Amino acid sequence: MSDLHPEVEAANSRFYRAFEALDLARMEAVWSHGEHVSCVHPGWPLLAGWPAVRDSWSAIFSNTEEMRFTLSDVRVVAAREIAVVTCTENILSGVAGRIAVTSVLATNVFERSPDGWRLILHHASHVLGGG
Amino acid sequence: MSDLHPEVEAANSRFYRAFEALDLARMEAVWSHGEHVSCVHPGWPLLAGWPAVRDSWSAIFSNTEEMRFTLSDVRVVAAREIAVVTCTENILSGVAGRIAVTSVLATNVFERSPDGWRLILHHASHVLGGG
Repeated sequence: MSDLHPEVEAANSRFYRAFEALDLARMEAVWSHGEHVSCVHPGWPLLAGWPAVRDSWSAIFSNTEEMRFTLSDVRVVAAREIAVVTCTENILSGVAGRIAVTSVLATNVFERSPDGWRLILHHASHVLGGG
Repeated sequence: MSDLHPEVEAANSRFYRAFEALDLARMEAVWSHGEHVSCVHPGWPLLAGWPAVRDSWSAIFSNTEEMRFTLSDVRVVAAREIAVVTCTENILSGVAGRIAVTSVLATNVFERSPDGWRLILHHASHVLGGG
């Protein structure tokens, strides 16, 4: 199954590049748009279904000035139809004029579509007392 | 793919029953024991590889008197080899004589083995200001 890893890692990178670009159209292209998609931003409640997930990115992008990700601990488990990436997001962000550096643990689940791997779950959470 | 949902949900239930039983042998039977398994307990750093994951359950079980889960928002995405369950864990717990009720969001990833579905990732996180 390891031959799938490069394309899954590429899909994972596209997600973070879209996030850094604060570009809703690029983020829309990363995700599946089904009812089965879900998203947990750090500390947020569960968002289920594409409309709620899309609205969250729109809100985050509207309130973020800058966001730079360096990933570490990237691990991929990939099968033919579903792939799971776990990683540590080392984040440099600017919100309301304040620069912050944080570490967030993320699980990203991708589903193979005719157009390639699409994100169906992003679960991100803080380490308490860390980052 | 939906015909896989009952067996995946059953594997997910076994995980929570083992957790409630505070029974390390049952928890060991739920998990894959590979280097690719990982676990994020709420607020904890990433644990990678079975020995670290196993040690965490041993430590949690040693420090927990009681744990009762009621699951809500259970969602399953299943393919032939990998299945992903997301759910809200509504938890009644007793630690150091203190009873607490909390809500935790969880992503559980299962891998099909010759012996059935085995857990390879548990990612759990608190909702800030909630639960």
